[in-house]
Amino acid sequence: MQFVAGRSREKLVAFQSFANTTMQLSALGQSDIILIAVSDDSIAQVAAEIPETNALIVHTSGSTSLEVLEPRERIGVFYPLQTFSKNKELNYKKIPFLIEVKIEEDLQLLSKLTHALQAEHFRMNSKERAAYHLAAVFSNNFTNHILTESETLCEQHRISFQLLKPLLEETIEKAFEKGPENSQTGPAKRNDSKTIEKQLAALQTTEQKDLYTTLTKAIQKHYER
Amino acid sequence: MQFVAGRSREKLVAFQSFANTTMQLSALGQSDIILIAVSDDSIAQVAAEIPETNALIVHTSGSTSLEVLEPRERIGVFYPLQTFSKNKELNYKKIPFLIEVKIEEDLQLLSKLTHALQAEHFRMNSKERAAYHLAAVFSNNFTNHILTESETLCEQHRISFQLLKPLLEETIEKAFEKGPENSQTGPAKRNDSKTIEKQLAALQTTEQKDLYTTLTKAIQKHYER
Repeated sequence: MQFVAGRSREKLVAFQSFANTTMQLSALGQSDIILIAVSDDSIAQVAAEIPETNALIVHTSGSTSLEVLEPRERIGVFYPLQTFSKNKELNYKKIPFLIEVKIEEDLQLLSKLTHALQAEHFRMNSKERAAYHLAAVFSNNFTNHILTESETLCEQHRISFQLLKPLLEETIEKAFEKGPENSQTGPAKRNDSKTIEKQLAALQTTEQKDLYTTLTKAIQKHYER
Repeated sequence: MQFVAGRSREKLVAFQSFANTTMQLSALGQSDIILIAVSDDSIAQVAAEIPETNALIVHTSGSTSLEVLEPRERIGVFYPLQTFSKNKELNYKKIPFLIEVKIEEDLQLLSKLTHALQAEHFRMNSKERAAYHLAAVFSNNFTNHILTESETLCEQHRISFQLLKPLLEETIEKAFEKGPENSQTGPAKRNDSKTIEKQLAALQTTEQKDLYTTLTKAIQKHYER
């Protein structure tokens, strides 16, 4: 039986089609797994409010250690290495789940859970998981901001940002197939100062110029070695 | 009949299975279209060396104007908005071709060419094409460098860079579906200085710290407005 517990009656509505919903943490006592999916800062507090239980209690945070769930014994982490948003479907098969448990036997339960989602899981400790979280934040947040500035650039020149989609898909595809270092191209990589000057002049905002200068210097420095 | 002309006998070998190859530009006189696919700086010179012809002569450069092919009359541009590399297959259907012609009637020929590749084409002038080229360089080059630093970060922590691939694919998917501005998440966006400090401390090289600081500040500045 699936239960979803939450503090907001409104937000629970979305879950009613596939689970029982409740605003009482005490209703969760009979479960096999209790999954705490809240902001990092609230994990310890929510965990403390869960009544005594035989269930395996796991949190879903990349940067929070397993120990935050102590002194309980049956604890674990179930961290999906993916970015989520409301109203956007995800292919769960393609999410790597990074899992950790305190008691060896509980591994099987989390393994069954990823199996039910047809996803892959990777066992690791809190330190390794934190490294993945850092690399994920670094890649996702910064790539996304570069796209934000690209979109502004397109708006300024009255051209379509959408037309860049195949290029960006190929950028990612290639970086993971050949390695990003082998895939680097462009004026910064080949130290083409004429083009760099021309492109800098074509940028209209300080934000774009700053980002262009910093990343161009970073690329130049990286490849002069 | 398809001809590929090149200066290097060795490099021409790769084309022999599907075209006649030649080292003589004079052999191209009978063609319908002559496609100049050389570095930007060499386009004018190669164009000048092509003997008098009734063919439509086009270059494939994003940042070079149509005029570089003058004083000839039947000239055009056939620019694929995509990144290419040797030894990596591409799905041509997914490449937007940005095209330009001097004589209206020649449009049909380039349109037929993209049709033969099952690709889409978009007609525009040299200025618009240059804007796409700039946005493409900006997005592709800088995203790729961020992935290069992410890979280094993974190596330093002995974790697998490959595990980040589904996340990056979703980052691109989401940025083009919801818009990158609506997709921004992370400590910089929510001004979470505790996490920012923690992450900065976990980065091991000056390169990563510099990139992290610049992009974090850029994101903070962008969203404080």
